[in-house]
Amino acid sequence: MTVSRVVELEGHIIDSGMMQACFGIVMDLGGAFDVEEFSVGRSKTEESYCRMTVSADSEATLRSIVHELHQHGANPTDPKDAELTPAPGDREVPEGFYSTTNHPTEIRFEGEWLAVERIEMDCAVVVHPGDDSSNDGSWAETKVLNAVEAGDLVVTGETGIRVHPPERPRERRAFGFMQGGVSAERPSESTIARIASELQEVKDEGGKVLVVTGPAVIHTGAREALAELVREGYVDMLSAGNGFAVHDIERDRYGTSLGMDTETLDHPRKGHKHHIYTISEVIRAGGIRAAVDEGLVGSGVMYECVENDVDYVLAGSIRDDGPLPDTITDAIEAQNALREQAHEADMVMMLSTLLHSVAVGNCLPSTTRVVCVDINPATVTQLLDRGSAQAVGMVTDVGTFLPTLADYVLTRS
Amino acid sequence: MTVSRVVELEGHIIDSGMMQACFGIVMDLGGAFDVEEFSVGRSKTEESYCRMTVSADSEATLRSIVHELHQHGANPTDPKDAELTPAPGDREVPEGFYSTTNHPTEIRFEGEWLAVERIEMDCAVVVHPGDDSSNDGSWAETKVLNAVEAGDLVVTGETGIRVHPPERPRERRAFGFMQGGVSAERPSESTIARIASELQEVKDEGGKVLVVTGPAVIHTGAREALAELVREGYVDMLSAGNGFAVHDIERDRYGTSLGMDTETLDHPRKGHKHHIYTISEVIRAGGIRAAVDEGLVGSGVMYECVENDVDYVLAGSIRDDGPLPDTITDAIEAQNALREQAHEADMVMMLSTLLHSVAVGNCLPSTTRVVCVDINPATVTQLLDRGSAQAVGMVTDVGTFLPTLADYVLTRS
Amino acid sequence: MTVSRVVELEGHIIDSGMMQACFGIVMDLGGAFDVEEFSVGRSKTEESYCRMTVSADSEATLRSIVHELHQHGANPTDPKDAELTPAPGDREVPEGFYSTTNHPTEIRFEGEWLAVERIEMDCAVVVHPGDDSSNDGSWAETKVLNAVEAGDLVVTGETGIRVHPPERPRERRAFGFMQGGVSAERPSESTIARIASELQEVKDEGGKVLVVTGPAVIHTGAREALAELVREGYVDMLSAGNGFAVHDIERDRYGTSLGMDTETLDHPRKGHKHHIYTISEVIRAGGIRAAVDEGLVGSGVMYECVENDVDYVLAGSIRDDGPLPDTITDAIEAQNALREQAHEADMVMMLSTLLHSVAVGNCLPSTTRVVCVDINPATVTQLLDRGSAQAVGMVTDVGTFLPTLADYVLTRS
Amino acid sequence: MTVSRVVELEGHIIDSGMMQACFGIVMDLGGAFDVEEFSVGRSKTEESYCRMTVSADSEATLRSIVHELHQHGANPTDPKDAELTPAPGDREVPEGFYSTTNHPTEIRFEGEWLAVERIEMDCAVVVHPGDDSSNDGSWAETKVLNAVEAGDLVVTGETGIRVHPPERPRERRAFGFMQGGVSAERPSESTIARIASELQEVKDEGGKVLVVTGPAVIHTGAREALAELVREGYVDMLSAGNGFAVHDIERDRYGTSLGMDTETLDHPRKGHKHHIYTISEVIRAGGIRAAVDEGLVGSGVMYECVENDVDYVLAGSIRDDGPLPDTITDAIEAQNALREQAHEADMVMMLSTLLHSVAVGNCLPSTTRVVCVDINPATVTQLLDRGSAQAVGMVTDVGTFLPTLADYVLTRS
Repeated sequence: MTVSRVVELEGHIIDSGMMQACFGIVMDLGGAFDVEEFSVGRSKTEESYCRMTVSADSEATLRSIVHELHQHGANPTDPKDAELTPAPGDREVPEGFYSTTNHPTEIRFEGEWLAVERIEMDCAVVVHPGDDSSNDGSWAETKVLNAVEAGDLVVTGETGIRVHPPERPRERRAFGFMQGGVSAERPSESTIARIASELQEVKDEGGKVLVVTGPAVIHTGAREALAELVREGYVDMLSAGNGFAVHDIERDRYGTSLGMDTETLDHPRKGHKHHIYTISEVIRAGGIRAAVDEGLVGSGVMYECVENDVDYVLAGSIRDDGPLPDTITDAIEAQNALREQAHEADMVMMLSTLLHSVAVGNCLPSTTRVVCVDINPATVTQLLDRGSAQAVGMVTDVGTFLPTLADYVLTRS
Repeated sequence: MTVSRVVELEGHIIDSGMMQACFGIVMDLGGAFDVEEFSVGRSKTEESYCRMTVSADSEATLRSIVHELHQHGANPTDPKDAELTPAPGDREVPEGFYSTTNHPTEIRFEGEWLAVERIEMDCAVVVHPGDDSSNDGSWAETKVLNAVEAGDLVVTGETGIRVHPPERPRERRAFGFMQGGVSAERPSESTIARIASELQEVKDEGGKVLVVTGPAVIHTGAREALAELVREGYVDMLSAGNGFAVHDIERDRYGTSLGMDTETLDHPRKGHKHHIYTISEVIRAGGIRAAVDEGLVGSGVMYECVENDVDYVLAGSIRDDGPLPDTITDAIEAQNALREQAHEADMVMMLSTLLHSVAVGNCLPSTTRVVCVDINPATVTQLLDRGSAQAVGMVTDVGTFLPTLADYVLTRS
Repeated sequence: MTVSRVVELEGHIIDSGMMQACFGIVMDLGGAFDVEEFSVGRSKTEESYCRMTVSADSEATLRSIVHELHQHGANPTDPKDAELTPAPGDREVPEGFYSTTNHPTEIRFEGEWLAVERIEMDCAVVVHPGDDSSNDGSWAETKVLNAVEAGDLVVTGETGIRVHPPERPRERRAFGFMQGGVSAERPSESTIARIASELQEVKDEGGKVLVVTGPAVIHTGAREALAELVREGYVDMLSAGNGFAVHDIERDRYGTSLGMDTETLDHPRKGHKHHIYTISEVIRAGGIRAAVDEGLVGSGVMYECVENDVDYVLAGSIRDDGPLPDTITDAIEAQNALREQAHEADMVMMLSTLLHSVAVGNCLPSTTRVVCVDINPATVTQLLDRGSAQAVGMVTDVGTFLPTLADYVLTRS
Repeated sequence: MTVSRVVELEGHIIDSGMMQACFGIVMDLGGAFDVEEFSVGRSKTEESYCRMTVSADSEATLRSIVHELHQHGANPTDPKDAELTPAPGDREVPEGFYSTTNHPTEIRFEGEWLAVERIEMDCAVVVHPGDDSSNDGSWAETKVLNAVEAGDLVVTGETGIRVHPPERPRERRAFGFMQGGVSAERPSESTIARIASELQEVKDEGGKVLVVTGPAVIHTGAREALAELVREGYVDMLSAGNGFAVHDIERDRYGTSLGMDTETLDHPRKGHKHHIYTISEVIRAGGIRAAVDEGLVGSGVMYECVENDVDYVLAGSIRDDGPLPDTITDAIEAQNALREQAHEADMVMMLSTLLHSVAVGNCLPSTTRVVCVDINPATVTQLLDRGSAQAVGMVTDVGTFLPTLADYVLTRS
């Protein structure tokens, strides 16, 4: 028995790799294709169009082929409305629910395509019908599994869903300029200069910048550079863990980070206790803002965040000492706080932290600009390998990266 | 002004490096020493003894020298009772509180030395006085900062505290055999054989084994080997994250891990959704145990834990999908659960997870045997760099390590 | 001024990524394209065809576009003979010489296409005309720069050259199964099983296997497994450095590798001198073969190579101790020896050595099967990033990889 | 049967770890010790002294204990002359020859101690007796195995040899300040500032600086910074490979390095051929100096070396393209050239190259100051793990390191 279905692709489907991906999917999954129409964009501004019949020897195979195809931007020619199934309970998605990609997505509801709001991968899509006589006011959004409520109309199956993977930009842009894999052997200063002008551009356009940062920023002595970027308005939101804030404040209180003086490189003995003393002091003060207000903390990244009303989220983890009163210890609550930041951000800079960067990256649509900096190439590879359209990865030392970036942004521009 | 204090060291203080460390501390911190008595163990079983006067030009310098010295096992000759200060509030330690090392520690209370229970680094020490007429029943324990309660008698200052860093074993033992830094260029099979016999020895002595594991164990196809070790009684406790359990059950339900078939190496398209489907199925079932009872899950590590009553802790994190109902989402609660496991363990095997290993490692006294396996040498270095006396680090592929270990333990022994 | 040229592509040009690459090249280099004919293969066995006019605003730009296009398989529709220029001197190539890719290449000479022999990247192509009245007996080959001789007819310019980048296999094959980047988080045993059956297949077909190996094979205790594969006929050629042979023989003579006993894990003091003693003993014997013949060496990889007439090349380097008399100390001579091995090999296994693997990889056509094993993901990435069509990379511990591979090949198959 | 021998140690034997090491050796090798005299330095400037009888149950065991002890600075109390045996042939050392450490060493010859010249590890020691009636003019030097000539008087056995491992500096110095292992999480700018002042100090004292560099310096865009340091006289000698010189000149000729424009980050198509064109151009010119003289090369590191008479050694390897006429293709000849540089250097900076750094490091005495910079922590660990007394390792990006270093040295000082 052979079953088949007609799908179509349009746009810059060749140079974006969509055609290649789709042909590969069909072959890998054991199906066959028969191209019925193919008109290629004759120039770089013209779009191409392809319509083909995909066939397989079982309905199950065909369904998984079509599922994959449409995740890569090929859509059935005979659109039907998406299938909606009420969630059976809180945090319970119906069987066969559609799990999102991080690409812009539309849902067909009562004959019209609704753009899904707050797009993010591995979520359910919930449709909120509008007024009953029309679908004016109907809208759709993503929900993570634990946010689904009983009765939510969840999209199930494969029909009535359109996904728009990012196309290759027609012109070369600053972002996305790192082609060909992650490597430490790239021009460092020139890349930083590029990131600096991109950062400037985002700010000039009124965009919001989210910095996701790990404690290595403090240990490597880049704290002052980051504090300066916060103070000068280049950072709108900050995501970090308890340890980042602790070492940042430890540096203010004791001149050390993880017990090492980041200027003299001395290891004052007893220094390894400084972070614990710091935590107990901030706890006694009642939190970071209170510690700043009391004059207990007078410099650093957290200080500048407080002074400049930069929204910060400190997400707790099981390896935390303390933690500080500001640290959100519940993982779901913390993830939701990160999610809000991620959805507001126009540009995200991930600095030497795998855990927080993965957490934030999970919430990002593929259209957000991402800069990822780490000294471990495997970390950069893992973070960039999430289908972001506009991403720059840099294998470098954050301890020299941030001072150089601050220099380009604040002095040389 | 010169101030001074007399300290003494005893034991195998030369070959354990204690003398060297202590002389170095005095010099580094700008003090001077005057050795008054030094009797060296004339043979490898005899202990040595050193008494010296340490001097510095300020009381503050002297205090920090003495603080460091006693953390390395040098103790004042004129012991006084430890100073105790009531905690001013819940989660508030008094100023100047003593922050622990991970070495066995004693506190002098009413003229007698109390061994501190549940030793763990970066904690406060709380003394519980016994009956008021004697100190019968007096005892001392560590408390992490967030567990301190108002009124707890917390040790402050430097007096009346004795620390016992681990000595170099007199005979060569299996553990601690990896000298000279972490390297991938070590004999792999022979090292695994050694770990296998150590594991066997711990079990033969009735000891408890805690496995701390990351999802790489599943992705690399080592799941069956670990499941077998659980089934055969070599694992008493398991610490992992939400992702580990998800991928373990995904493998059972869909044959994949992170979407890849770990046997055929196929990437069934749609496979990248399997983990989300898995999560929603376990949520619907009400948890892992319920899913096993329902017959939804019939193999794997989590299955064997349920079937063999192996205590497991799944600690949540901000990057989790779902999470599963079993996952403890509050970091403090999760850390306390790990702490219980850590204090019960006689041997800890850390398998390809940095976050959970650091969390567990933080709770371990320096006397617990630790095996740490990761493919990233920096991870192994970081985990072993915590002063454990009996530790083996191995830079290897957990996907071949576990099958080989299981083979040695279950077949070849 | 606009200049233009017509090029055509044929084959599985979509799913192999050729179309995508070519469109990208034109856009990146500032040209424009106008697709004149495009017939897409209607099914997975049908080939596609595309003819397009490429235009640019200068002859120089157009030339570099066309140069790039044809390196990706797009060829001018109006083939002319290649331009040939005599080399002005020994080791001197004429200006504008054509530098090869590692893909199968043809040169148009007197109206006919000659397949270039001994294809290898970054070489000149030298045409040897046959009999003067016809081009019977004409042939073409690659020459590295230092092998070019005065008067050699070297291909210059861009015309008359056809390159055939590898196409995506129509069916899934064992090789090339690692898609999506290099990662340690892949199923280890299943991958090794796949490599084992591939190795078996090559041998069954009478193919030749070249093992390129570093000293880590000895240090990690995998020596016996590799020796067994040599003895059982699975290795036809071996490439290594002086250090590999030294440590292999050190193990035989002293039971150690780099001074560590690879079985007991002891570090016999004085062990760090064993390699120097080993070298001096082999020098005294007159070489490895002589040492085997004398009975000085009775086991190990080099021993099995000698006993089983496996061709080995020991290439010298500046970090060598000794070196052994067998080591080729001149880099050009050593490279030529490797080149012979590379061109004869049907399958190459690169085991934990970057230097030798790069050297051999430089000499390989893109059609040779390659297996690359290293514990450092950056090494695997670098080695696979050379355009091989049939390559498997594995981030694992060679000390467990080789015993497991030998087990699959010799026992389980 | 018990055999024994008396040895003594003197100096700062406790805080340098010598006592600890020696006690450990005796225990590890199954011997026993009996301390007869031990006087400990009563203050940090006083030296200590220890005399002990070491015993073992066989002469062989005792010998290997004593061998190890004296490599760690413990010397027999009853010094005898060293045993000298003539080398039986060229490149043939006599059996039982003494193989050197990299520490300062003395040989007892005719009752007097001769300092061994050109100390370097894994060498033979050859004594050149002076005038026959006295030993005026007698001297000793190291020879690598392949430099030994028939008849050379080679030191054999264990007697009459004194080794002086480096002691812990009495005061804290810039160098050697990185204690506690290699880590990327160290203060980057402060460490660079320290290295800058150390470099300045060496130059102020008239010392010689050897830079050992890999091509990553060019790829990461740090070429101009290094060229400037050469031009300003901070580099006296340069060691590199063929590839470094090729990419440095490629940047001059084509604006690219490995085909990427290090300023604009463009990948001019055809760029991947630039290095081959560069090589052929330099070959045509007859070498680098000729290319500079002809005006073919007008900037960069090699250009500055030529213009400023900085001695450079380009050591060939099997992965070289070309090579350039300047490249020494014979490994022994190249190693000897490196050896001359190494022995002349007062400070060595190893920049992002493992092969050349190991080669140079092999030739260095333990007293030379070493700075090692690499982005891979395993490389830094491996390079520092060679017993250098005065070494700084830094895990950072050489592309930001060198500009920052040049800034500190040339501008901020």
